[in-house]
Amino acid sequence: MLQDELPLVARLLRSQRVASLGTLADGVPFVSLVAYVVEDDLCSYLLHLSDLSPHTRHLRADPRAALLIAEPETAEVEDVQTLARITLSGTVAQVGKNSPEYTTGRERYLARHPAAAMLFDFADFNLYRFTASSARYVGGFARAYTLTVDHLRQAAAGTIPQ
Amino acid sequence: MLQDELPLVARLLRSQRVASLGTLADGVPFVSLVAYVVEDDLCSYLLHLSDLSPHTRHLRADPRAALLIAEPETAEVEDVQTLARITLSGTVAQVGKNSPEYTTGRERYLARHPAAAMLFDFADFNLYRFTASSARYVGGFARAYTLTVDHLRQAAAGTIPQ
Repeated sequence: MLQDELPLVARLLRSQRVASLGTLADGVPFVSLVAYVVEDDLCSYLLHLSDLSPHTRHLRADPRAALLIAEPETAEVEDVQTLARITLSGTVAQVGKNSPEYTTGRERYLARHPAAAMLFDFADFNLYRFTASSARYVGGFARAYTLTVDHLRQAAAGTIPQ
Repeated sequence: MLQDELPLVARLLRSQRVASLGTLADGVPFVSLVAYVVEDDLCSYLLHLSDLSPHTRHLRADPRAALLIAEPETAEVEDVQTLARITLSGTVAQVGKNSPEYTTGRERYLARHPAAAMLFDFADFNLYRFTASSARYVGGFARAYTLTVDHLRQAAAGTIPQ
């Protein structure tokens, strides 16, 4: 049941540091690796992207995007189909450099990614927020669920959804 | 220089068992986790997908796809921006169940993913081939390269490209 999976969803979204970002390259699928940090509500994800990257150009042309967050493959995993993963569908918007959100977002991002501090001095890097509108969670074989934003919020709050 | 990176490209593509598959969900980006095995030429990737999965429906409507293959995140990695990754752009086609390619493809796939053997008895699972037409490799910060199919073949052959 989905309600049994929500604590696992919350743990997965909070445990990783990288996601696969899906964007549209002139209408063609593109996927790149990005560092992220999740906000408390599990609906909002901060990314720090360079203007020089293909995905940033794609997002400026079309803000629709997907984020895949997955348990990493290790040698100990016998069957990779058992790796937990979640696909978040949503849109990406830039966080204005003079906004209060930028200051708090940068702090949150750097608390998770201290090695990225120097990149905040580069003029071509900007902070972006991915906002999820739905999600698909696969906990393993025959454990696939579609999640709403409310499910993500319930997972975030640790409450048991109805 | 790109020619110095090609051995690393070959190692990365051969070392992993899962990739992030980018597809179009009615024109919207979607990314899911898939098991894969690469062919010797590094241009062709075998996937074993269920008709019940969203990505399979997407590919039947539009075969254009991307595969991201990345070094997995581990606790030892201080800066996740240093993780090597490659985005392959291409198209996906089903391998006919009565073709000789199916037999050799299944053998190759199962040699890499023995735990998937039982899935070959399920009627909703089919074998697919992703064929790359170009790639973008990021070996780390400021080490980004666009690769052609010829580069992939050169990486596969272990020859030094001109």
